[in-house]
Amino acid sequence: MADKSTKAVKEITSMEEDFGKWYTDVVLKTQLVDYSSVKGCVILQPYSYAIWENIQKNLDAMFKATGHTNVYMPMFIPESLLQKEKDHVEGFAPEVAWVTHGGSEPLAERLCVRPTSETLFCEYYSHVVQSYRDLPKLCNQWCSVVRWEKTTRPFLRSREFLWQEGHTAHATAQEAIEETERMLNVYAEFCEKYLAIPVVKGRKTESDKFAGAEATYCIEALMHDGVALQAGTSHYFGDGFAKAFGIQFADKDNTLKYVYQTSWGVTTRLIGAVIMTHGDDNGLVLPPAIAPTEMVIIPVAMHKEGVLEKANELKAALAAAGIRVDLDDSEQSPGWKYSQYEMKGVPLRLEIGPRDIENGCCMLARRDNGEKKSYPLENIAETVKEILAQIQVDMLEKARERRDSMTYAAHNTDELKEITESKQGFVKMMWCGDEECEKAVKETYGVGSRCIPFEQENLGDVCPICGKPAKHMVYWGKAY
Amino acid sequence: MADKSTKAVKEITSMEEDFGKWYTDVVLKTQLVDYSSVKGCVILQPYSYAIWENIQKNLDAMFKATGHTNVYMPMFIPESLLQKEKDHVEGFAPEVAWVTHGGSEPLAERLCVRPTSETLFCEYYSHVVQSYRDLPKLCNQWCSVVRWEKTTRPFLRSREFLWQEGHTAHATAQEAIEETERMLNVYAEFCEKYLAIPVVKGRKTESDKFAGAEATYCIEALMHDGVALQAGTSHYFGDGFAKAFGIQFADKDNTLKYVYQTSWGVTTRLIGAVIMTHGDDNGLVLPPAIAPTEMVIIPVAMHKEGVLEKANELKAALAAAGIRVDLDDSEQSPGWKYSQYEMKGVPLRLEIGPRDIENGCCMLARRDNGEKKSYPLENIAETVKEILAQIQVDMLEKARERRDSMTYAAHNTDELKEITESKQGFVKMMWCGDEECEKAVKETYGVGSRCIPFEQENLGDVCPICGKPAKHMVYWGKAY
Repeated sequence: MADKSTKAVKEITSMEEDFGKWYTDVVLKTQLVDYSSVKGCVILQPYSYAIWENIQKNLDAMFKATGHTNVYMPMFIPESLLQKEKDHVEGFAPEVAWVTHGGSEPLAERLCVRPTSETLFCEYYSHVVQSYRDLPKLCNQWCSVVRWEKTTRPFLRSREFLWQEGHTAHATAQEAIEETERMLNVYAEFCEKYLAIPVVKGRKTESDKFAGAEATYCIEALMHDGVALQAGTSHYFGDGFAKAFGIQFADKDNTLKYVYQTSWGVTTRLIGAVIMTHGDDNGLVLPPAIAPTEMVIIPVAMHKEGVLEKANELKAALAAAGIRVDLDDSEQSPGWKYSQYEMKGVPLRLEIGPRDIENGCCMLARRDNGEKKSYPLENIAETVKEILAQIQVDMLEKARERRDSMTYAAHNTDELKEITESKQGFVKMMWCGDEECEKAVKETYGVGSRCIPFEQENLGDVCPICGKPAKHMVYWGKAY
Repeated sequence: MADKSTKAVKEITSMEEDFGKWYTDVVLKTQLVDYSSVKGCVILQPYSYAIWENIQKNLDAMFKATGHTNVYMPMFIPESLLQKEKDHVEGFAPEVAWVTHGGSEPLAERLCVRPTSETLFCEYYSHVVQSYRDLPKLCNQWCSVVRWEKTTRPFLRSREFLWQEGHTAHATAQEAIEETERMLNVYAEFCEKYLAIPVVKGRKTESDKFAGAEATYCIEALMHDGVALQAGTSHYFGDGFAKAFGIQFADKDNTLKYVYQTSWGVTTRLIGAVIMTHGDDNGLVLPPAIAPTEMVIIPVAMHKEGVLEKANELKAALAAAGIRVDLDDSEQSPGWKYSQYEMKGVPLRLEIGPRDIENGCCMLARRDNGEKKSYPLENIAETVKEILAQIQVDMLEKARERRDSMTYAAHNTDELKEITESKQGFVKMMWCGDEECEKAVKETYGVGSRCIPFEQENLGDVCPICGKPAKHMVYWGKAY
C-alpha cells in the first residue's frame, strides 16, 4: 500500500509540463471523481461530494439570509413548454437529452431532461402569482441538469452536473435588476470568503448572454494557467418570459402587469475553480472554509506509550471546538501520510510524537505555504483556529496577487499582439461595443470577451480594433 | 384575501366524508405541492421542501453518525449496465423512462433515467474495491429517481420523487446483514423521534422483495384511514450483485472473494405519511422536529402601542434560543391568522396583545390537541421549548394509540372475514409461509401481507388458510 500511494503522489504530472494532465491526475488520484460507463458524466466520490456539501451549506445560508426559499421542480420539461420562449428554446434545444419512452410505450409528447428550469418556474409562477401581495417570488433549487456536451472534463464541462438555480419574479424592473446584482454580489462574496478565489464582477457582452436574457452578469476567475473560468452567472430577463408565459399580477393601482424576472446559478464547476486556483504540483490545496477535513493529526512513533492516547485526546478536544479534524492511526509511515494528506490538500497537519508530548507541544504544518512550526499544546484549539483563519486569508491574497500579476493592459493592437503571443492571463482593453470588433479580437488574437467589468478603467478613448470611440473597458482572455 | 383563505380552510373536505379528497385538499391548500404540465410529477413548493430539508438534515446526520458518506452518481444508466443483474432488470425495465436522443442525434445506446442506482454503485465499487482494507464501502446519495407509474398521487406515488439511497459493500454476509438491520433501525428511530410516527419493523415476504434482493426489510406505518404505508426499506443482496458486476477483493487470507451488499432508502413519501398520520379536518398537524415553523407569533390589536415591538422582541429572543419562529404582522385579522396557521399545521401559536403585555404573559395554543393557556413571559423560550418537546412526545403517543386501536388479531378465517369486512387497519394473523395462502388472503379478503414483524406473537399453531403448521405471524392490510 505504502509504495502504491507514494507512487501516486509522484505520478501527478507537473503543472509546468502539462496543465491539462496535471488537472486530470489531481481529480483522479485524490479520488475526487471516478469515471463510469455513462459517457460524459462522472461520479462524485465522497471527497468531492463533501466539498460540494460545504459549498451548498454555506451558499444556501446566504440565499436564505437574502430571503430565498428552496423548492423542487420536475426534472422533465415537455417539448411544448420548452418552446414557449423563442430565444430560450433556440439556445437550449440543440443540447438537451430527450426522453421518448416511458416503460415500453412511446410518449405522446417527448420530454427533455432539464438543461435549466426557467420554463418550469415560469409555469409555476403563472399559477401562484395573482396580486402584488404575492411578489416578490424568491425561489431556489438544488439539483442536477443535463446538457449534451461533445467534449467533457470533470467539474468543468459535464453532460450532467450539480448546481443551484435561483428564479425570482418581481413587481418592477428596478427590483429585478437589484436582485440580479444582489445575487452576483452574493456569489462574489462567497467565492472570496469561502473559496479564497478573487473574481472580476461584470456584464457579458450581447453575443455572450444567456438564451432569453436581457442582461447576463458574471463573475470571472483566472486559473493557474492563465485561462479564465466563468464561476457564476446572474441573469436579468425583463418581462420577456412573463409575456411568453402569461405571468401577470394585479398591481396596487388595480391594473394587470407582467412580472420582471431573474435567474442565477453556480455549479460544481466551482470545485474545478478551487483545484485550478490553489493546487500545486503536490496536488490539491483546499481552503479551510470548504475543506472536508480542516486538519489531520498524524501520530509519530505511535506505538510508543501515550502517543495514540494523546492524539485521540487532541482529536476529541479539537472536534469539540468545532474543527473538522481527522486522526490517521493507520499502519502507514508518517512520511507516507504526510504526502497523502498533502496531495489531498488538507489545510493543516498536526504531528505529535513522544518528544513533543514531553515538551507539551506539537508541530503544525501548513499546506498552503509549507510552513512548519512547533506550538504549545495549551490552548491548541485556539491556535489551530487562528492558523486556519490565517490560511484562508493568505490563500485569497496569494490568488489575488497571482491573478493581478497575470492581468495585462493593452492600449493598442501591438500590445494586444505581444501579450496574447507571449503571455497567459486576462487582457484589459477598450472596446467600441461593436460585435464585429469583438469577433475580430477573438479571431485574430485568440481571446474572447470575458466581461465588461463593473469597475471600469480608462485605457484610452478609442477601440484599438476599429478606431471608433470606446464605450467600455473589457476583460479578454481564453476561457474554460 | 381574508375571505379567500378563510374559505380555503372551510373547503377542506372532512376525513370522514372522503379521505382521498381530504388528502388532496390538504396538500394543495396548504401549498405543499402544485401541479405542472409534467404529467405524474408535482412541484414541491417552499413549504413541503422545507419539511424535506428538515428530514434530510436530521436523517443525514444519523447516516454520518453511522459512518456513511455521500456521493453523487450519474442520473443515467446505459441499457447494458441495467441488464447486468437479471432479476433487477426484470423488476425495473417495465417502468423506466428512456433517453434516446442527445440534442438532434440518436444515441448509440439508449439510457434510462435511474429508477434506483444499484447498477451504478456496483460498477463504482468494482473499480474502487480491491482489498479487504477498502471495505466496508458505506455510501449514500440524495437525489431524485424516476419510475413510470400509471396512477400517481402527491408524495405517495409519483413519476419522479426525491429520496436517499444508501449502498454498501462488506467483506462478509454477516456484516452486510447487520448493516441492513442497522439502517432499518435508523429509519424506525427517525420516524418515531422526528416524525412522531410509530412503525412496525419486519421482513417482506418472498413475493414482495425488491428486485434482486435476498431479503427486504421494511417499516410499516398505519394511516388515519387504516391503510398501511411502507415508510422505508432496507435490502440485503448477498453476493448476487457482486457476482454479476465482478466486485471482488483480496481478503486477509489472500484469496479473492465477492463482497456482500445492501441498499436502503426512504423518500418524500415520508411527508405523505406525516400528513395522513397526524392531520385532521382543519388541515396539517406537523411534528415540531420537522416543522418549517415551530411556532408563529400572532399579535392581537397590533396597532396598539407596544404590541408589535413586544412581538418582535419575543421573536428575536425565541429565534436566538434556536426556535424556528415566525411573526405574522400582516393586515389580516388575528382570527384569520389562527385558522391559516392551524391549516398549515404550525405546532404552536403565541398570541400577544395589550392586556397580556400588561400582565407580563402571553397565550400559547397547541395545534395537536387545541390546548390554549396563559404563560408568563419570563423564561418564555424555556417554556416554549418544553411545550414543543411535549407536543412531539404526545403526537407519537397519540399516533401509537390510534394505530394500536386499529390493529386486530385474526385467529381463524371467520375472524379475518369479520375484521376485513367491518374494519380498517392492520390484521395480525399466522401464516404457513406458502405463497398460495398469501395470494388467497389477498384475493378473498382484500388484504396483502405487509410484513413479517421482528416482534413475533403466537396467535395459534396453524395457518388459518390451509391448516398447515404456521411459520410466522404476519401483518396484513390494505396499502398505499
